[in-house]
Amino acid sequence: MKEEKIILPPINPTKSVEVISEFIKERIRESKTNGLVLGLSGGLDSSTAAYISTKALDKDKILGIVMPSATTSANDVEDALTIARNLQIKKEIIHIDNILEQFSEINVPNNSSNRLKLAKANLNARIRMMILYYHANSMNRLVLGTGNKSESLVGYFTKHGDGGVDILPLGDLYKTDVNQIATYLKVPYEIINKPPTAGLWHGQTDEKELGITYNLLDKILYLLADKHLKSQKVAKILKIPLEEVLRINNMMKNSEHKLAPPPMPQIRRK
Amino acid sequence: MKEEKIILPPINPTKSVEVISEFIKERIRESKTNGLVLGLSGGLDSSTAAYISTKALDKDKILGIVMPSATTSANDVEDALTIARNLQIKKEIIHIDNILEQFSEINVPNNSSNRLKLAKANLNARIRMMILYYHANSMNRLVLGTGNKSESLVGYFTKHGDGGVDILPLGDLYKTDVNQIATYLKVPYEIINKPPTAGLWHGQTDEKELGITYNLLDKILYLLADKHLKSQKVAKILKIPLEEVLRINNMMKNSEHKLAPPPMPQIRRK
Repeated sequence: MKEEKIILPPINPTKSVEVISEFIKERIRESKTNGLVLGLSGGLDSSTAAYISTKALDKDKILGIVMPSATTSANDVEDALTIARNLQIKKEIIHIDNILEQFSEINVPNNSSNRLKLAKANLNARIRMMILYYHANSMNRLVLGTGNKSESLVGYFTKHGDGGVDILPLGDLYKTDVNQIATYLKVPYEIINKPPTAGLWHGQTDEKELGITYNLLDKILYLLADKHLKSQKVAKILKIPLEEVLRINNMMKNSEHKLAPPPMPQIRRK
Repeated sequence: MKEEKIILPPINPTKSVEVISEFIKERIRESKTNGLVLGLSGGLDSSTAAYISTKALDKDKILGIVMPSATTSANDVEDALTIARNLQIKKEIIHIDNILEQFSEINVPNNSSNRLKLAKANLNARIRMMILYYHANSMNRLVLGTGNKSESLVGYFTKHGDGGVDILPLGDLYKTDVNQIATYLKVPYEIINKPPTAGLWHGQTDEKELGITYNLLDKILYLLADKHLKSQKVAKILKIPLEEVLRINNMMKNSEHKLAPPPMPQIRRK
């Protein structure tokens, strides 16, 4: 049997954790802030980010905030609290439903029920951003974003929501890389192995919503974004339909604006 | 008497409005959205932005949202409504106090009362961002930011608050340029002539808080940011203390992160 060719070369977990930890220290120094605030969802990314943070800073300089809504499973809250306990970092639990409820009194015109569902889901992510910054501003700390490279590239996050952060330590790691680092850092097995979800509604999972496994998505993204290959070439290498690569390429193009500075027209002077 | 040398060359209002209006049209086309949502504060920037928007799009594709809090003057609300009426664009009035109140139940640790005041002020701006996006997401529209170049350069706005927008049509216009365009577009005289304020607390005015007039600030910023002159040179040209230029230069440096994509460490692969 022929060995499978490696498409996405692995990272070195030890070195990666060192680089990320140095990055966090440097950003804290540079911004003259004195610590980190991050959201703990009980999922892989935020758990891994919390573990790495403790490699960079003293435990008392890290605040993890658990922000459940009505659609958050009790299991995820438990897992988030386990992370805080394991790492002995400070934690807060702040339910977002009371805030969310205030928005239900606003009647927004909408073109379709799907759009309204998305708009409501985005409210969740933006309320969490506000709570994180409320603490960070008040404590003179940075908001640590827990987004990874796979999500960032395809825009699988809320603009000015979970995308509204000060630093993105996992921003150059694909989801499958985060998995590798989590294993290396001994993040609890149950957390590494649960299906990734944005948790914005019941039964939501990333892979169902994205319509692709992270395993395949990461390879496509690596070839498109890091190796700058054309979609045709990527489809051929991965032996998948061209349409699927074009679909992902399109998601990338359509979400470029989500982390970019807002565009403005240039005005000439006399 | 010697004529005063012009430091900040004037813009051409007719051409500028054309360029900005083209920019708005192009962004709507490119993003496949079907209109704009913007906040109307009754102040100069948002009023001017609303006037320009009607040059680019049909009135029914523009929604102005007035979002008063307890610290908003009745006069500003009136002015905002006048703008909507004058332009015959759609408007909504949404009070933010009910949402704001929910945050008062969150006890944040804080290092100083000033920090806490700032954190609370930022909540106002971020709630308004959420309301704008709630409408924009639901209606498939863009959020039009009303920030100008003076504010953007010195960071006089809230990150992911009034800075959390899709496009910045006035982003290359200094405050004094916006004044000129407002006059050209016949924005009501009372609005052009009221003291600029972020409206985050009673009696707040931009110039008091920034500790400098826009007239002088814009000249300093033009020489530093557009002409790339050294602080020493700028102080000499404007005949002002070097300390003042260094203070502004410092504000610029410290606020670069506020509209930039979140930084991330680069990870190497084998």
